[in-house]
Amino acid sequence: MGAIGIFDSGVGGLTVLRSIAERLPGVPMVYLGDTARVPYGAKSRDTVIRYARACAELLLERDISMLVVACNTASAFALDILREELDVPVLGVIEPGARDAVAATRNQCVGVIGTAGTVRSGAYQHIIRQLVPSMHVVAKACPLFVPLAEEGWTEGPVPLAVAGEYLNDFRESGIDTLVLGCTHYPLLRQVIGETMGKDVALVDSADATSRVVAEVVSSMAPSLVSQDADRRLRFLVTDAPEAFAQVGRRFLGHDIGPVEWVDVV
Amino acid sequence: MGAIGIFDSGVGGLTVLRSIAERLPGVPMVYLGDTARVPYGAKSRDTVIRYARACAELLLERDISMLVVACNTASAFALDILREELDVPVLGVIEPGARDAVAATRNQCVGVIGTAGTVRSGAYQHIIRQLVPSMHVVAKACPLFVPLAEEGWTEGPVPLAVAGEYLNDFRESGIDTLVLGCTHYPLLRQVIGETMGKDVALVDSADATSRVVAEVVSSMAPSLVSQDADRRLRFLVTDAPEAFAQVGRRFLGHDIGPVEWVDVV
Repeated sequence: MGAIGIFDSGVGGLTVLRSIAERLPGVPMVYLGDTARVPYGAKSRDTVIRYARACAELLLERDISMLVVACNTASAFALDILREELDVPVLGVIEPGARDAVAATRNQCVGVIGTAGTVRSGAYQHIIRQLVPSMHVVAKACPLFVPLAEEGWTEGPVPLAVAGEYLNDFRESGIDTLVLGCTHYPLLRQVIGETMGKDVALVDSADATSRVVAEVVSSMAPSLVSQDADRRLRFLVTDAPEAFAQVGRRFLGHDIGPVEWVDVV
Repeated sequence: MGAIGIFDSGVGGLTVLRSIAERLPGVPMVYLGDTARVPYGAKSRDTVIRYARACAELLLERDISMLVVACNTASAFALDILREELDVPVLGVIEPGARDAVAATRNQCVGVIGTAGTVRSGAYQHIIRQLVPSMHVVAKACPLFVPLAEEGWTEGPVPLAVAGEYLNDFRESGIDTLVLGCTHYPLLRQVIGETMGKDVALVDSADATSRVVAEVVSSMAPSLVSQDADRRLRFLVTDAPEAFAQVGRRFLGHDIGPVEWVDVV
C-alpha cells in the first residue's frame, strides 16, 4: 500500500503534513510543492484546476493510496473534480475546517479568512451553510498574510499592522470563531489572535484535516504504516528545492532533508 | 513593421509600457503578463528562463519588431539568452537602470532593491561595476513590496512599516542613490522616498528603459508608428484577464480596455 500524497502550491501545506505526522507517527508521506507556479491564491479557477490535476498525476506516479489537497485554493476549486477523476480517496482542507468552525461557534457567527480565490469561490460559506443553514458567515481575503509568513515576519509591528488593516472590520462584526482558511495562516496565529481578541476562537484547517486523514487511514489496511523509516517523508518541488527546504523549515518545525525537483507542465 | 512587444510576470511591467507610451505616443505595443505563473521573483534561474522563452515566443507570433523584457527578474536571468536566440532587438530594464544610477550618484555609493532573484543574480551589481569599477554597491531583496503594490497599499502605516524594516540598514550605509530594481516599486516611490530621506536619489528603471526604447525606435523605420489607433495597445495574459484589468489600472494610470487570454506552457 502506498504513501499519503499531499500537495500544495508551495510550503504552506507543510502545516498539514506536520499535523498528520504528529497524529500518525511513522506513516509514509510524499509531499509535492508546486513552487514553479506558486501562489495559487490570486489565480483563476480554470488555472488552479489545471495545476491541481498536474500535481495529482505526479503524485499518483509515486504510488500513493490517498491524496490530501493541502491547499485551500485548490480544495475550493478542484476537490470535486479530483474526486470524480481519481481512484484514491481525496481529502481537502475546507470541509474539515468548516466542520470545526460549526462545532466551535456559540453565537452562530463565523468569520473566514483566506486567499482571494478561496474567498471568491464561496466554498467555506457554502459548506458551513450546508451544515447549519442559519449560520451567519463573513469572509475576507487577506493576500498579504502569505508573503508575510513566507518572509518569516510572523511577529512585530509589520504583521500586527497588516492584521489590523484586514481584521478591524471583522472585530466589529460579532463573530466568535475565525477560520484560518489558508495553510500559511497558522504561522500568523499569534498575531491574528492578538488582533481578534481572546473571545474569538481560531480554527486551524491543518489540524482539522489531519484528524479526518487519521480517520480515513484507520479505516484502511494497517500496512500503510511504513516499515522503512528512511523513506518515510519524501519532498518534491517543481522549482527551487533549496529555497523550499529553507522556508519550509519554519513551517515544518524541523529540517526537511533532501528535496527532489520534478518537472511539471 | 510590427509593434513593440513587452512582457512581464504580471502587471508590474505596465509601469514600463506607460513610460514608453508617454515618450512615444501612438507607437503600437503588445503587452503580455504571465499571470498564470506570476511572480517570478522567488523562482529559480532555470524556471525564469523557461518562462521568459515562452513569453518571447508568444509575442513573436504577434509580429513584434522589438522585445522589451519589462521584468527585472527575467532581465537578470534571461536577457543574454533571449538576445542570442531572437532575431529582433531585445531590451531589458537592468542596464538602463544601472546607467541612470551611475549618472545620479555623487559619492559612488549606490543601493539596489529588487526581488530575491534579481538581487541574487548580481546583475545590477555586475553592470554598475562594469561601468565604474570603484563603485560601492549594496543590494537588498524586498519581497513584500510586490504584494503590497498589488494590494494597492501604497501609502499609510503598513507600507511605511514594511519599508522601515527593509530599508533602515540602507539609511546607515551612506548610499546617495537607490535603484528601484523591480517594476512594482515605482508605485511605492513616495513611501520609499520618505523612508530613505530627501538626500537619496531614487532611480526608476521604467523611466530609464523607456528612454533606451525611444532611442532604439528612433533608429528604426518610421512606419513603426501605427496608423490604426484602435489597435495601438493590446494586452494579453496567461490567466485571469479581469483581475489583470482591475489591478493593472493602478499601474497604467487609466483603464486598460479588453484583455485577451492566451495559453502558455
